[in-house]
Amino acid sequence: MTRILYELAGRDQVRFSPYCWRTLFALKHKGLAFDRVPMKFTDRSTIADSGQDRVPVLDDDGVVTADSWRIATYLEEKYPERPTLFGGAIGQGTALMINKWVDLVVHADLRPIAVPGAFKNLDPDDTDWFRVSREAMFGMTLEALADGRDAAVERLGATLAPVRATLETQPYLCGDAPAYADYILMGSLMWPRCCSDAEILAEDDPINAWRTRMLALFDGFAAAAPTHAAA
Amino acid sequence: MTRILYELAGRDQVRFSPYCWRTLFALKHKGLAFDRVPMKFTDRSTIADSGQDRVPVLDDDGVVTADSWRIATYLEEKYPERPTLFGGAIGQGTALMINKWVDLVVHADLRPIAVPGAFKNLDPDDTDWFRVSREAMFGMTLEALADGRDAAVERLGATLAPVRATLETQPYLCGDAPAYADYILMGSLMWPRCCSDAEILAEDDPINAWRTRMLALFDGFAAAAPTHAAA
Repeated sequence: MTRILYELAGRDQVRFSPYCWRTLFALKHKGLAFDRVPMKFTDRSTIADSGQDRVPVLDDDGVVTADSWRIATYLEEKYPERPTLFGGAIGQGTALMINKWVDLVVHADLRPIAVPGAFKNLDPDDTDWFRVSREAMFGMTLEALADGRDAAVERLGATLAPVRATLETQPYLCGDAPAYADYILMGSLMWPRCCSDAEILAEDDPINAWRTRMLALFDGFAAAAPTHAAA
Repeated sequence: MTRILYELAGRDQVRFSPYCWRTLFALKHKGLAFDRVPMKFTDRSTIADSGQDRVPVLDDDGVVTADSWRIATYLEEKYPERPTLFGGAIGQGTALMINKWVDLVVHADLRPIAVPGAFKNLDPDDTDWFRVSREAMFGMTLEALADGRDAAVERLGATLAPVRATLETQPYLCGDAPAYADYILMGSLMWPRCCSDAEILAEDDPINAWRTRMLALFDGFAAAAPTHAAA
């Protein structure tokens, strides 16, 4: 039995991909052991055999699944006897809605914070490719994107208002205990955490207290992840 | 056994409160019979005994609960043998997050559409009170608020992007069948439907197809509600 997670890696073991983080949390939640195989943007040979060109890719003893959402639903179906990620069909449906909201709305605010940070924490082989591809994607230089950082932090604070209101009522997005919807958002907050020195949450923000609880899960798994905030 | 829902009513049986609609859908989902007692903004005597001053208020054989979210959790706990609204603790947690998002974000876009519409569909006794209270609340005349209607419809289209992306993947926000998170948003879309002639969704929008399915539920319960779009 081998279980391998192929994931994006920068220099010095920095892992900033929000999507890979969602899968890392999901595997931990299920209590499943796994090996981690790093991938560079410019060398995807490790996942070539899978027929995929984007990570995360999970090879679960020969069953290969790509895309963080599909991996989560695969794990839930394959390992129903282990702690649930969704708590049933309705919880899975509403988690997808939260997934779409985070990807479409929260990520727009995170991008000016995390993308320039990621650039500084790439494997050196990836820097040219990243600059060209991202500047084409966003229609501006990485430096111009970075200039919008403070404004993005302010917008993010407003965007997260529904999360804040929820966490004023219950300790996790999924209620009394964390589950996949928490990992969706937390995965995305790991993105700036692992590659930027921007502080995106006020100390007294209920979301900050939740983030601290999330970092402590699984014996401090996320808290122990390398950060290159000062780089 | 008596079960009474106290709800906001305008003239000619128009019921536009998004919060009361959520409770109406929740009661229908649970298959519970109930009587409906209308309330005017300016005469809340029917709920005075309940100690509440805002609707919806549910009197379930003497157990009085106010606030649409609290009523939904009450019904789920009280009638666990009937169709579930949340599908368990995780589904309830994530439904609260969607509730907050709709209230804080979607309602901001609905307000310039629905509030001036509601004004035209009030019980005549309520019009002066409504104008004064709403103009104070929003810091502008109802007419100025209405001037922002077309811009609000356009913003709403963008705000609902995560809903659209979800409904491109599954038929309801809660997955294969509707549950409370669907009623949260649908309750809010009943607000403009019942009091405004604004068309807020393009015909080919997946959200429009979902709304049509929601209107058809429970033998067309919501579809049959009086609308005064032309008023």
